[in-house]
Amino acid sequence: PSMPVFVIEDKTHGNRTYSTLNEGLGKVLRFGAFGPEVIERLRWMQEVLGPALGRAIRALGGIDVRAIISQALQMGDECHNRNKAATSLFVRQVGAALVETGTSREETASVLRFIAGNDHFHLNPSMAAAKAITLAGAHVPRSSVVVTMARNGVDFGIRVSGLGDRWFVGPAQYIQGLYFAGFGPDDANADIGDSAITETSGVGAFAMAGAPAIVQFIGGSPADALRYTREMYDITVASNPLFGIPSLDFRGVPTGIDVRQVCRLNMLPVINTGIAHRLPGVGQVGAGVVYPPMECFEKALAALKEDTYHE
Amino acid sequence: PSMPVFVIEDKTHGNRTYSTLNEGLGKVLRFGAFGPEVIERLRWMQEVLGPALGRAIRALGGIDVRAIISQALQMGDECHNRNKAATSLFVRQVGAALVETGTSREETASVLRFIAGNDHFHLNPSMAAAKAITLAGAHVPRSSVVVTMARNGVDFGIRVSGLGDRWFVGPAQYIQGLYFAGFGPDDANADIGDSAITETSGVGAFAMAGAPAIVQFIGGSPADALRYTREMYDITVASNPLFGIPSLDFRGVPTGIDVRQVCRLNMLPVINTGIAHRLPGVGQVGAGVVYPPMECFEKALAALKEDTYHE
Repeated sequence: PSMPVFVIEDKTHGNRTYSTLNEGLGKVLRFGAFGPEVIERLRWMQEVLGPALGRAIRALGGIDVRAIISQALQMGDECHNRNKAATSLFVRQVGAALVETGTSREETASVLRFIAGNDHFHLNPSMAAAKAITLAGAHVPRSSVVVTMARNGVDFGIRVSGLGDRWFVGPAQYIQGLYFAGFGPDDANADIGDSAITETSGVGAFAMAGAPAIVQFIGGSPADALRYTREMYDITVASNPLFGIPSLDFRGVPTGIDVRQVCRLNMLPVINTGIAHRLPGVGQVGAGVVYPPMECFEKALAALKEDTYHE
Repeated sequence: PSMPVFVIEDKTHGNRTYSTLNEGLGKVLRFGAFGPEVIERLRWMQEVLGPALGRAIRALGGIDVRAIISQALQMGDECHNRNKAATSLFVRQVGAALVETGTSREETASVLRFIAGNDHFHLNPSMAAAKAITLAGAHVPRSSVVVTMARNGVDFGIRVSGLGDRWFVGPAQYIQGLYFAGFGPDDANADIGDSAITETSGVGAFAMAGAPAIVQFIGGSPADALRYTREMYDITVASNPLFGIPSLDFRGVPTGIDVRQVCRLNMLPVINTGIAHRLPGVGQVGAGVVYPPMECFEKALAALKEDTYHE
């Protein structure tokens, strides 16, 4: 099956970004599972869920994803591994329109039940919004701000605003966290996926001060959650006033990782993320905290120096 | 019009408690407004909203209100003046059943839109749940725990578990808080309503440490919110492990106000609450923080002493 996508529009800069629809946890395609139940769910998403959401969201003239993220950050989400509030707000906003534009009572109920049953449903539009945020800061001459962090299970790569489309790469690390029942560290693959775009944009682990309950899912203590956010102010260039953290007196999330500060302080950006099984077909087996390899940032810093000398 | 009610069952103790359906903020009957728009809304609630929710909730075999409160306390609600998460979780849980049991697409959409448009919709079932919690602790011989706090705009009364149905009364106080646009302290009535049952049960202002964003609605700072909860541990007999506050390392909310501790420490229970206009017909004009008069507790303490001496 092919996959319908959310389309996120940055109306200020004219950029469009995209995300698939979230399948849930466990046996899901994006963590490498591909059994019959996975394919069946994907078909239903293509035939029922996608079209239903498309009709409802178009009838609403779009949904303000930034406003959902902003509210969710005040409701215990950090919008990477805790998406319970954002998902609930999304259902609230789209519910009546789903009913009004639905093809049948059964289909509409199945759509509402699927979204209601997946606390991570809003992760994907949040990721696309994060991509739109970072895209708005890309390709600024001489800027040392990181605009992409992505991993493929083997390598971890970053891109930097002032360094065009070049990737600065090092080995993907292993995740420290909590495993779903029946799995453990021996099952884990190294860090994988494009979801670290959330941290790159200032949410995710960078916003964990506002999401202390997440430690039930990824491990650690609420004090750790607070510390992660506090530390990230030291390696970022700004705080985002649209994404305020109530427990930090509504201070905006730390935003814009500065390669120079990462190297100067020897302090890596923190990422919380799902753990994929190392074998294909199994899927997600846990969630936790991980860091990029320092060499990505060292290589990028060297490239920034080179560019400056050659101007 | 008459008013449909939520029925809350305490299955352990066999108690039933009840609440009306929340009309929203501003011009609403429960804050003294009674104009045509108020009556029209009440009629719609009687004819459409109540029956629709009744069908959906019965089809689901009931909803676990305690679980909604427990989750909402981890999502920035304190379940008295911030009910955004609980309301969103409620919509999520009831949405599919509303569709399946609805009489028409238009009615179902109108119900979903009404609930989605009222961040305080879940206040009322939370209040009835709070009543069920306090009822379970009522009529315990010699107990000095407060089981009711209620105000009528003139008097503030409390009842104590070991003192039967006697009320201990003092003058209702004025609320310190934020006013809706166009209103100010001169418009305010003294403290009114039965919603302080939330604080009596351990949530509301007692749980504000987990709801720092509420200061945008009731005034003060996130540090105040944290302080209120911390202080309330000094005048309560227990913490409720079912209602954990993530930012306090999942410590349960302070529960069971002890008349003896209130008098010993001269520390009153804190309540956050809506501000009613002093003239009939206007409705809610703000929200803030208020305290009971100390004499309620002094009178109750004297009664506890008397009862002990006469045994």
